[in-house]
Amino acid sequence: MASLAHTRSYGERALNATNTTAKLIFETMERKKTNLAVSVDVTCTSDLLAIIEAVAPYTHVDILEDFDHSLIERLQHLGREHDFLYFEDRKFADIGNTVALQYSSGVHKISSWAHVTNAHPVPGPSVIKGLSSVGLPLGRGLLLLAEMSTAGSLAVGTYTEEAVRMARKHRDFVIGFIAQRRMEGVGAGPEDDVSTEDFLIMTPGIGLESKGDSMGQQYRTPRTAVLETGSDIIIVGRGIYGTDPKEVDRIAAKAERYMSEGWAAYLERLS
Amino acid sequence: MASLAHTRSYGERALNATNTTAKLIFETMERKKTNLAVSVDVTCTSDLLAIIEAVAPYTHVDILEDFDHSLIERLQHLGREHDFLYFEDRKFADIGNTVALQYSSGVHKISSWAHVTNAHPVPGPSVIKGLSSVGLPLGRGLLLLAEMSTAGSLAVGTYTEEAVRMARKHRDFVIGFIAQRRMEGVGAGPEDDVSTEDFLIMTPGIGLESKGDSMGQQYRTPRTAVLETGSDIIIVGRGIYGTDPKEVDRIAAKAERYMSEGWAAYLERLS
Repeated sequence: MASLAHTRSYGERALNATNTTAKLIFETMERKKTNLAVSVDVTCTSDLLAIIEAVAPYTHVDILEDFDHSLIERLQHLGREHDFLYFEDRKFADIGNTVALQYSSGVHKISSWAHVTNAHPVPGPSVIKGLSSVGLPLGRGLLLLAEMSTAGSLAVGTYTEEAVRMARKHRDFVIGFIAQRRMEGVGAGPEDDVSTEDFLIMTPGIGLESKGDSMGQQYRTPRTAVLETGSDIIIVGRGIYGTDPKEVDRIAAKAERYMSEGWAAYLERLS
Repeated sequence: MASLAHTRSYGERALNATNTTAKLIFETMERKKTNLAVSVDVTCTSDLLAIIEAVAPYTHVDILEDFDHSLIERLQHLGREHDFLYFEDRKFADIGNTVALQYSSGVHKISSWAHVTNAHPVPGPSVIKGLSSVGLPLGRGLLLLAEMSTAGSLAVGTYTEEAVRMARKHRDFVIGFIAQRRMEGVGAGPEDDVSTEDFLIMTPGIGLESKGDSMGQQYRTPRTAVLETGSDIIIVGRGIYGTDPKEVDRIAAKAERYMSEGWAAYLERLS
């Protein structure tokens, strides 16, 4: 029988999570009553901080022009103050030795502050082993990109199945997927007991209306993602912060709207 | 009939290349009589510069702890002085809007100094469009990762074919592939004229002996890669600079050995 992980509450799933970060995420969602991750793709620190102050648990540090180590400390402080977690959407996609260095080192030192990061499964299991060698001792968690929301994505069919098989073999570190649907049981063989399988599903490409942009991104509504296809966390970026990071009130209001739509869909899913 | 691009000399292929960077690469290889790219995966600038002084045209800036803008200027100066080109092995793998920012912005400003970079085709054509919007006006070139040399790679079969189809539709910017074999004609339909198709093939996972490391990387010799499977450029990293970047003479000697083996295999291929 297929797992019905997504029909249980975040709080209940926190109790069953074995990875430290997976537990922390589920607990935080339950406590704050939100399943929204805000994607902040801006190129300057002051904009990042302005938007975080308004809303956010989600970043792309590698496009920040003026990143420096003091920013990491400010992010950590803000995270504690506002009770949120960081997901660095780095999309690691290299061999084990290289991703281990990219994750731990460089200007950004992602493993030192991001609770969760993600990786493409395309290099094979070595990408998980490399990241895990850095992240697991720190209690971090990893999401695999099992699907993408762009037009013409190659993360389909057997690619997606292989991604889930890889995750299944590394459940100490892989806590779930960037995907458009539930992944429990996908690619499983008769030898796999998937009845209690529970993956955290984070879904990008969310908008209040369904449409696309000029570079191939496609959008779905919070209700479609959470209720119809079982997403656990909706990721929203430009849909919330728009083009002017100084419009704090407008940004907060937008975030509020996504939060309430996402949470309402979640409650409906549980009922 | 399949294209026989790799049986022609680099100099001849330079004449037929339409992309500015592809032309530059072929010309540089012909002039310097080398098909070696040295992969410098170190975490501090002084080691990077020491190794470059000894050999190199290839970097991973995102693992440098102490990257700053003055390094870009030094890299550009060294490139001119020693007549080599930079390939930033960034493996972009996100939606168009994000990769455009990652390529142009952030601490590293990759598009401002790297002649070539690479991307995974997994997001679909949007990854090419996003990077091209930044790189094409600068005369840059892109390689797609059509295959990977790691165990259990998912870049196989239809994934590889789709990568080549994507490249074929964007020949102004996509100059070739990170791959283990020739890609001319791969995934082509009856409507495609591939008789004069010419992709630049760069191949990682090269060692003087065939073996593997503990994180799933697999190695082939320069001769196997260039002569038997048609690679145009061999990528060698730790095999050249080892563990101590200060051993300049040993590093230069190693590089010399890879260069001569790679070039001998190329000459044999032409004959």
